[in-house]
Amino acid sequence: MRVTTIHGPGDIRLEERPQPGITAPTDAVIKITAGCICGSDLWPYRGANDVTPGTPIGHEMVGVVEEVGADVRSFAPGDFVVVPFCTCDNTCPHCRNGAHSACSNGGFVAGGQGEYGLVTQAEGSMVKTDGMPDPAMVPSLLSLADVFPTGWHCAVSARVSKGDTVVVVGDGAVGLCGVLAAAQLGAERVIAMSRHEPRQQIARQFGATDVVAERGREGAAAVMELTNGVGADAVLECVGTDDAMKQAFAVARPGSMVGFVGAPHGVELPVRRMFVKNVGLAGGMAPVRRYLPELLDLVTAGAVDPGLVFDTVLPLSEVAAGYRAMDERTAIKVLLQP
Amino acid sequence: MRVTTIHGPGDIRLEERPQPGITAPTDAVIKITAGCICGSDLWPYRGANDVTPGTPIGHEMVGVVEEVGADVRSFAPGDFVVVPFCTCDNTCPHCRNGAHSACSNGGFVAGGQGEYGLVTQAEGSMVKTDGMPDPAMVPSLLSLADVFPTGWHCAVSARVSKGDTVVVVGDGAVGLCGVLAAAQLGAERVIAMSRHEPRQQIARQFGATDVVAERGREGAAAVMELTNGVGADAVLECVGTDDAMKQAFAVARPGSMVGFVGAPHGVELPVRRMFVKNVGLAGGMAPVRRYLPELLDLVTAGAVDPGLVFDTVLPLSEVAAGYRAMDERTAIKVLLQP
Repeated sequence: MRVTTIHGPGDIRLEERPQPGITAPTDAVIKITAGCICGSDLWPYRGANDVTPGTPIGHEMVGVVEEVGADVRSFAPGDFVVVPFCTCDNTCPHCRNGAHSACSNGGFVAGGQGEYGLVTQAEGSMVKTDGMPDPAMVPSLLSLADVFPTGWHCAVSARVSKGDTVVVVGDGAVGLCGVLAAAQLGAERVIAMSRHEPRQQIARQFGATDVVAERGREGAAAVMELTNGVGADAVLECVGTDDAMKQAFAVARPGSMVGFVGAPHGVELPVRRMFVKNVGLAGGMAPVRRYLPELLDLVTAGAVDPGLVFDTVLPLSEVAAGYRAMDERTAIKVLLQP
Repeated sequence: MRVTTIHGPGDIRLEERPQPGITAPTDAVIKITAGCICGSDLWPYRGANDVTPGTPIGHEMVGVVEEVGADVRSFAPGDFVVVPFCTCDNTCPHCRNGAHSACSNGGFVAGGQGEYGLVTQAEGSMVKTDGMPDPAMVPSLLSLADVFPTGWHCAVSARVSKGDTVVVVGDGAVGLCGVLAAAQLGAERVIAMSRHEPRQQIARQFGATDVVAERGREGAAAVMELTNGVGADAVLECVGTDDAMKQAFAVARPGSMVGFVGAPHGVELPVRRMFVKNVGLAGGMAPVRRYLPELLDLVTAGAVDPGLVFDTVLPLSEVAAGYRAMDERTAIKVLLQP
């Protein structure tokens, strides 16, 4: 089968590898209907993370169950499933506490940009749809593997609640999903910090009431003006850089929380400011399985359409072009069809 | 009148200064019944913070109202009051949101280790007792000016809730009050990290169910053993050093929160660990006024006795000896009687 591999910075290849098979009774093999490229895949693509040449890449997928191990009792070949990027048994003390991304038996999906994927801890991780979905719904279902629950986790971590004024830093797919999550969780005002018109447009479709195009001090001043000098009740940091984190803390009102879900690269947290302003920080790798049933309901009911973040659809054979498009920010998020 | 001043590292003096008078209609002048030395006073005493020689020091006091400005309507000469170390109008957007320590019109009490104190924003800041208190209750009332609400804020920030297992890092007066707060907020198990026997004893009186004397890796291993390898549901960091912060994150279970209330000195937050483990951080300078009515009720009802942290009582004339005792850790917290 074909699977995407990374060989070094900027070096993405589609290669032939053996189709995965069951290696443990908790495994499942999935025939991938759709995979995609994540903002976090750009870190190794840009050389910010070391890679072992030839490593399969891609951790988001939806598809049809091909085969299951003996301990996987809730799923059968033919089921259409959403696969969280981080797998979990859904029974360990951390899972029972809602911290599924720290599952004692957890792992990560690999090879999601390919034809077939192996899912460890399939029973605890996967969630199936009620029958085969309409193809038009596949992008939104695929968003449930990572990007939508990640934006959601950011909003939950920032303790967004009804009537809040929320600022979202970052207009990538996660940031846009953060806007959607904040609006769904009852925020009255959602200020998206974005300077790219197509992204601003999706932000507004997702519920942004205001857009601030400025960054840094000017961006903070614009938010302060919008909030009568008070700042935001909750801030979502959806990038992972030091600039984005500083931006987030600059607009957070005293006593509020910053949620963060972008893998931190070069971030130095402003502990003194956090102390003096009583602004907290929470978040991290999203416990996708925790939110999946609720978010799948929202998607299947048509209440939300997070699949709008996929503004580019490519055949798997053009995966390298997909990386280039995301790297150059000409695409927000690329969906890959095997 | 006499007031304590600091002239440099280790140089504490009692000096004659003019008795404060009303300077604004929002002021009150208090005849101090009792003041005390705070752990944070040791930072300048040890040379960690720069000082202007001759600056009055001390920010905790209870006493009797001597005089009030025209806008102070709820208090009259003769009232016994608790004065929060950070003053606030209790009406600005930050106060209304519970972030009183970031009040738009707030300030800090100065000269609390003296005979008379000036309170700005007296109407919004002070809380009075129902008549003159029994002298035996003065230490607990004095603890309400800072140390008990600060420990309480740490527990609230760490989101301690019923049935939790809580770890408290730091066995100073704030840490001990953190133990008391965690127990009051319903923690089932409170693990105090302390290696000083007299402090361990107060921790147990305040509700600690376990004491861990080890520190660093051994301390973390001991907590992990006590929690079946899971870690704590909430952690209170009550020191402000990098070692204490590292200790706190080392024992926090995935998905939990670390509360922090010690002014950070040399702290580098472990952002990568926070991300991977989904452990958040919240806290800062305590919004004392927010908690005062509730905590005053607990104290006057005799439900708690936070005044136990004052293991040493000295006349104001011996304030320099009080600093030495706290610096050398022969006293937990020193109460000063003018």
